[in-house]
Amino acid sequence: MKKPNWSAAEFRQAARSITAVSHRLYQHGWSPATSSNYSQRLDESHCAVTVSGKDKGLLSEADIMVVNLNGEPVSTGKPSAETALHTQLYRHHKNCGAVLHTHSLASTVLTMHWPNSSELILSGYELLKAFAGIESHDYDMVIPIFANTQDIDQLALDVDAAMSNGRISHAYLIRGHGVYTWAEDMSACYRQLEALEFLFMAELERRKLGGAP
Amino acid sequence: MKKPNWSAAEFRQAARSITAVSHRLYQHGWSPATSSNYSQRLDESHCAVTVSGKDKGLLSEADIMVVNLNGEPVSTGKPSAETALHTQLYRHHKNCGAVLHTHSLASTVLTMHWPNSSELILSGYELLKAFAGIESHDYDMVIPIFANTQDIDQLALDVDAAMSNGRISHAYLIRGHGVYTWAEDMSACYRQLEALEFLFMAELERRKLGGAP
Amino acid sequence: MKKPNWSAAEFRQAARSITAVSHRLYQHGWSPATSSNYSQRLDESHCAVTVSGKDKGLLSEADIMVVNLNGEPVSTGKPSAETALHTQLYRHHKNCGAVLHTHSLASTVLTMHWPNSSELILSGYELLKAFAGIESHDYDMVIPIFANTQDIDQLALDVDAAMSNGRISHAYLIRGHGVYTWAEDMSACYRQLEALEFLFMAELERRKLGGAP
Amino acid sequence: MKKPNWSAAEFRQAARSITAVSHRLYQHGWSPATSSNYSQRLDESHCAVTVSGKDKGLLSEADIMVVNLNGEPVSTGKPSAETALHTQLYRHHKNCGAVLHTHSLASTVLTMHWPNSSELILSGYELLKAFAGIESHDYDMVIPIFANTQDIDQLALDVDAAMSNGRISHAYLIRGHGVYTWAEDMSACYRQLEALEFLFMAELERRKLGGAP
Repeated sequence: MKKPNWSAAEFRQAARSITAVSHRLYQHGWSPATSSNYSQRLDESHCAVTVSGKDKGLLSEADIMVVNLNGEPVSTGKPSAETALHTQLYRHHKNCGAVLHTHSLASTVLTMHWPNSSELILSGYELLKAFAGIESHDYDMVIPIFANTQDIDQLALDVDAAMSNGRISHAYLIRGHGVYTWAEDMSACYRQLEALEFLFMAELERRKLGGAP
Repeated sequence: MKKPNWSAAEFRQAARSITAVSHRLYQHGWSPATSSNYSQRLDESHCAVTVSGKDKGLLSEADIMVVNLNGEPVSTGKPSAETALHTQLYRHHKNCGAVLHTHSLASTVLTMHWPNSSELILSGYELLKAFAGIESHDYDMVIPIFANTQDIDQLALDVDAAMSNGRISHAYLIRGHGVYTWAEDMSACYRQLEALEFLFMAELERRKLGGAP
Repeated sequence: MKKPNWSAAEFRQAARSITAVSHRLYQHGWSPATSSNYSQRLDESHCAVTVSGKDKGLLSEADIMVVNLNGEPVSTGKPSAETALHTQLYRHHKNCGAVLHTHSLASTVLTMHWPNSSELILSGYELLKAFAGIESHDYDMVIPIFANTQDIDQLALDVDAAMSNGRISHAYLIRGHGVYTWAEDMSACYRQLEALEFLFMAELERRKLGGAP
Repeated sequence: MKKPNWSAAEFRQAARSITAVSHRLYQHGWSPATSSNYSQRLDESHCAVTVSGKDKGLLSEADIMVVNLNGEPVSTGKPSAETALHTQLYRHHKNCGAVLHTHSLASTVLTMHWPNSSELILSGYELLKAFAGIESHDYDMVIPIFANTQDIDQLALDVDAAMSNGRISHAYLIRGHGVYTWAEDMSACYRQLEALEFLFMAELERRKLGGAP
């Protein structure tokens, strides 16, 4: 294992950033029961990621570890079972600096209650401007929905293929399991995630009001 | 640029006031994903306003700047993209001391789900007494809904024209984008905003129960 | 004005008790936009009560004053506009030690959306045991709904008459305006209020699921 | 009474653990109005349990006492009225280290609104993996619903019989009264409870969307 490109201070900054975001996401109710995982890039071939199975409302910096972009541990700890979905994003998007996955009520209900839906479309909301590169509310954001599976390596391959085919822009859903989004840094990623969860709640409210999917 | 009429202490008071309100509004969930903007009047021709694109849950006094009532910066920083909607209000209402714009789930759903509605009417609620000049629950508050646009200067002109014609009393909505309200000082403005968001939630609940718009 | 029967320490204890409860009720979302008012008995003919028009999330001990049971100020300050509803309860119930009035979304929607309902019945819930004297979930609690009015003195007379006729047990509602409950001390009163607001939310959820009133 | 097998430090750890969980559960809104009770095992024949009737948002270590597994007090205090449901679990499951009972809106509405339902089935959710021994989302969790009663001793016998017959896996509901779950330690038990309450909310949302039980 060669000498890392990042300093101890950079790792600690990443660990603090992940921990602070974790507490906020838990408070929003989007990361219950040790679900969810978060990561931040350290250099071109490594990221800091949450270890497996921690209470996201009590996360501490000691719960963050380093993996390379093949998902192999570079520090002590057992990485999250879904680390392969994080590393796929860092490999695919060279400018991806942070990845957040949450497990909210709205994303769970929207994907479970319509089991045959393969995408969710968010249209015409001002909050779409929270996503990188979107300048107007007059936009249709298509968010693909993948079937849930315990074979995360296969899912990472499927996501990668869909991404290479241009079918994923800013986020994707896994049925009954939540959302993944990514951005150039953690604050942009957090902003996108807040927008997604808000818009999922809006869609859920509208379906209760009689809007069909 | 002539010597300002306000002191450094007055600017800091305004910045603290805006910051404190920002944290409360974020906690309510009404300012997600860097949406929303807030301002407070400094003198007859200037106001303090949030800079563009900040996380409202983490807002600090350094994120507040000064603009004149044409929306031109008088201190460093890039003002919110919607500053023209704030300055319109300070120009139109000489006694307007604070403006709050939030971007809540209820206001978003109510305006998006009925795309042809041009106003929202709040009737008979005790909480209408939270608005300046209203002394009884026995009142119909008409809140106009403007189409969303990225041309904020034009929207400011449209709002100003509607206001001059007496068609806007205490607040207006922008479709899929939230609400604007204003009052003589920040605490009155915050009170009005809490009342608006509460009543929007009440209307949303009632529509789920079968009440038509 | 004769020498009071309560000590300064007793007043301060009441003021602290009211303030602490106020912050909790605001956090629950049941006291928005300066609505709601709270009181605690000081002796057989006086109570401490919130002054008019304060932000309940920011209430401080300086916002609590003393009135006699005719609602006349005994310390500086303007008492809440609804003080007469508090003093009616202290006069009617000699063992009443605290009164809480909140203005929640659920109580507002339940009373506004069915404008002809004159009572709300809570049946079969375990949480009914939170009310003084109720030992089993197998109970029907009838909560009368009064029409809203700005004539609080008349409303206090109407409440008193209904109470004398045995038609009010633990709480009453005012249409579009919230709930009043009372108990022998503040912690019992807070417990009853939490139970009421929980059961109002349960009733509201059930009506969305198709339960008719 | 023989010398206890646990140290004062172990009791205090249990009391702190219960208190910390209590504050979190209250914040979630799942333990209103002094409802709910919590316990943690001390040794093969004793557990620490909340005393009766305390505000779970204000619980302190002084509100925790010790009972033996027949529910008899071993320290001062009046144990929760439902202590027999806790001790049944410690007797039945030798590796049970903690028991949590909450009284949430979702569990109340789901059990009250369908009064003839005898079980709730949770199927296909990723969050089912939060339960001990469940490795995949592809699972049907059957949660029995018991009728509410004030005869807790009889209910404990009924639960014990159902458990001996293999009809209870990770949790059970009491109609209009909430859920019980248990696990090898408090953090696992809290994780399961968060998963249960999340999934109850998901089921409630789905029923509003038209899903029948």
